[in-house]
Amino acid sequence: MKNSLNREIPDGLKPFQSSSDFRHQERRLIPEKSPVDQSLFYPSLEAAFLAMDIKPGMTLSFHHHLRSGDQVINQVGELISKYDIKGLTLAPSSIFPEYRLSDLIIRQNITQIVTSYLNGPVADTIAKGHLAGELIMQTHGGRARAIESGELAIDVAFLACPVVDKSGNGSGAYGKSACGTLGYACSDWRYAKKVILVSDTLVDKLDSYQLDHSHVDGVVMVDSIGDPAGIVAGTTKITRDPIGLKIAEDTATLLTELGVIRNGFSMQTGAGGTSLAVADAVKKVMLKNQVKGKFASGGITGYYVDMLNQGLFEHLYDVQCFDLEAVESYHKNKNHIGISASEYGNPFENKSAVDRLDFVILGATEIDLDFNVNVTTDAFGKIIGGSGGHADTAHGAKITIITSTLTKARIPIIREKVRTITTPGSDVDILVTERGIAINPLRTDLLEKLSHSRLKIMTIRELLDLTYAIAGKPKEIPSGKKRIGYLEYRDGSVIDSLYDSPLY
Amino acid sequence: MKNSLNREIPDGLKPFQSSSDFRHQERRLIPEKSPVDQSLFYPSLEAAFLAMDIKPGMTLSFHHHLRSGDQVINQVGELISKYDIKGLTLAPSSIFPEYRLSDLIIRQNITQIVTSYLNGPVADTIAKGHLAGELIMQTHGGRARAIESGELAIDVAFLACPVVDKSGNGSGAYGKSACGTLGYACSDWRYAKKVILVSDTLVDKLDSYQLDHSHVDGVVMVDSIGDPAGIVAGTTKITRDPIGLKIAEDTATLLTELGVIRNGFSMQTGAGGTSLAVADAVKKVMLKNQVKGKFASGGITGYYVDMLNQGLFEHLYDVQCFDLEAVESYHKNKNHIGISASEYGNPFENKSAVDRLDFVILGATEIDLDFNVNVTTDAFGKIIGGSGGHADTAHGAKITIITSTLTKARIPIIREKVRTITTPGSDVDILVTERGIAINPLRTDLLEKLSHSRLKIMTIRELLDLTYAIAGKPKEIPSGKKRIGYLEYRDGSVIDSLYDSPLY
Repeated sequence: MKNSLNREIPDGLKPFQSSSDFRHQERRLIPEKSPVDQSLFYPSLEAAFLAMDIKPGMTLSFHHHLRSGDQVINQVGELISKYDIKGLTLAPSSIFPEYRLSDLIIRQNITQIVTSYLNGPVADTIAKGHLAGELIMQTHGGRARAIESGELAIDVAFLACPVVDKSGNGSGAYGKSACGTLGYACSDWRYAKKVILVSDTLVDKLDSYQLDHSHVDGVVMVDSIGDPAGIVAGTTKITRDPIGLKIAEDTATLLTELGVIRNGFSMQTGAGGTSLAVADAVKKVMLKNQVKGKFASGGITGYYVDMLNQGLFEHLYDVQCFDLEAVESYHKNKNHIGISASEYGNPFENKSAVDRLDFVILGATEIDLDFNVNVTTDAFGKIIGGSGGHADTAHGAKITIITSTLTKARIPIIREKVRTITTPGSDVDILVTERGIAINPLRTDLLEKLSHSRLKIMTIRELLDLTYAIAGKPKEIPSGKKRIGYLEYRDGSVIDSLYDSPLY
Repeated sequence: MKNSLNREIPDGLKPFQSSSDFRHQERRLIPEKSPVDQSLFYPSLEAAFLAMDIKPGMTLSFHHHLRSGDQVINQVGELISKYDIKGLTLAPSSIFPEYRLSDLIIRQNITQIVTSYLNGPVADTIAKGHLAGELIMQTHGGRARAIESGELAIDVAFLACPVVDKSGNGSGAYGKSACGTLGYACSDWRYAKKVILVSDTLVDKLDSYQLDHSHVDGVVMVDSIGDPAGIVAGTTKITRDPIGLKIAEDTATLLTELGVIRNGFSMQTGAGGTSLAVADAVKKVMLKNQVKGKFASGGITGYYVDMLNQGLFEHLYDVQCFDLEAVESYHKNKNHIGISASEYGNPFENKSAVDRLDFVILGATEIDLDFNVNVTTDAFGKIIGGSGGHADTAHGAKITIITSTLTKARIPIIREKVRTITTPGSDVDILVTERGIAINPLRTDLLEKLSHSRLKIMTIRELLDLTYAIAGKPKEIPSGKKRIGYLEYRDGSVIDSLYDSPLY
């Protein structure tokens, strides 16, 4: 037998016709050994919800990477309401003002909440005493530890996932609701009894993904998992407030005097205006002294992306993207590495990001004479936040610095005793204010290094007296009387209790 | 009850002691829902081999990413010999001179071989007529197609994997035997009935991997999967031969006259000295005219990595890393993307890399008056290579250029008829030699564009006559008489037969 090129070929074989002959043929695919199970895809969130057979007493979890724009927790909330399931524990990694859970709490569909951060209507509803059970507030690292240890046993995790593929792998890197790394979802994905990915973007095959299908029990495509406008708040800007800028510059001077801005160092700051001003002041020192850092970690903003791109850091370790620049960089730059909450701050994680930090810059609602910090409640006992990574980084970092003005809205931030201890004073080293800097007396090493500082080093008691002299001594507002919950430290021990607010 | 910070906490809960109290505690981990099956790990390659219950008639496959340094095919070969299993089909993606399979062929342990490229002792053993069954030579893209369609049904794939994690995910990105992308292993991994990863580097958890555990049936840790010196041949250098450089410069001039070096273009060349010289000449045009290309593809060398890093290309699509610079870049640069053989050249793959190429620069052992190209056998009928991606890229690329000197070791490369057709002339557009350039008459569009070329455009017949005038007309060496196998075109049709060499 001869083919079209006049070559002899063995009988019984298909002769070559032309190089484009395949266009007339159908692609044939044998089953893969581990076939994609199409029954993995539920036709609706309601179908998945019903298939999970959710019963009173179960624990449902969510992550907060879509932040104010998240629709998944609200959509599941509507189903809880529709089927009127009572006595559930909700364990989202954080709760934003846009999450509509208050009615579910009041009607006792939700009777216990475990989370790391909350504010807005849900916080107020709980502070008013409406939650039948308790509010348990964890750190980001503590939440990962509680999940992996079984202390926080999750029955069903509904995980918003900006893009999924047909095999059930998921990523936050792109899709119309892209949010970047899904660091806070990793423990839920790995240890929840059942995992449902909820997405609005389906592709054939993802080349890389944070959540592989091996732990996924179902996928649901919905019209929208989130409002992009709420997912990222837009690029956070460096503060223009001259007091904030002075605090930032003094902090950079302090870090320079301590000699920590050196080759191979690592740092974390928050994403607020003063935090970014500190980062900016540190950056100027780095450029001036030609210093290259090892990594920056935490929630990442475009400001750190720029520093990575300028070669000022080798890597970013990103547990949560705060803006679109961070999402884009996470998608494209191999040195911008997504990490899980466990890799970020689990006390039992070997070489967690927080344990490798040279310094961290944090905020405070209150700080007391023992350097205990409160970022959970305000002066009136309202719940306005929570640890997030505060206690994790404060413990891990070699130097923990709180930056704050002496008063906020005329309320002193230094107190004899903080209302709520989020982070123990033993892990808080320095307070930088616009009028002076206080060093935790436990850190004799730092006091010694700063003995010839050109900055104004004072005791925290002196700073408190100065505050009283300026703003007067505030009237004590008593705690509420009804205990509504408690704060778990990162190892699961209880560091403080929460009471209803006397405001209500 | 009060904790160490003198805070009231609910009874029955663990009071906070100190922030470092966790150091006295044990980490607790509940089982993951899809637990890592530790029975996945075999204690030895022999144990895995025996567990696979390999019987006569079965097909075993391997990839060739460790190239000359591969030890896995040799280690499995020793087990085939030890247990004297007869009648096996071996389907490695390529066979290098260092692969010790000749005795297994002679003793009929291996009776059929399916591969895309081979040379050295195994090729000679087959050309001498020792293979009981047939040698089937495929293209890289055709191999992927044959595997996914079930035409090449693999019973057990032994896949060398430079790093694996405890869950059974594998990557070539690092480890002591790092080889970069594992593009030629992907079809085997996905479709083989059983998949064994053989590695010499174990880590707890890989953040990204090309081969996920879902298709893996077993993992074996061995002392060494390969000799690093043989894995990468060292950086390939641009030729210094003035004839090679002239061919490269003429090729770049030709491409410029054809107007294809423009923003958004894509290209592929081989990794040989003249190919890199063409790439270098193209690069100079790009720099001069400020052109940025979309991608370069194929086997990737450090030369292309530099071009990526200089911003001359948006992406590299890499099915195989040819040197350490490529391995390093694949590991670190998100724009250096590993692709499977299917994504590279499967005729049925939508938007395969080859189908998106503007031009490809290829070599030839022989090219005939119909532009058919032979890269499989030499003038004496010895098997010296095979298609690899030759026929895939020649078909996919908009312009296919063969660069060669008119004679090699005094043997003309232009023939009336090539001994073996690897790539049909319908897919070969231009031959660039040191004495002139021939355009395939089928490409009237190219002939028209080059009608005012300042290069020496001739017919291929004229180039052949010129060769005869210089080197004389070579004596015809007849084909062997015993058919030893055949060449499958990328769609599985048979494009030519292989005969034993008259040399032996």
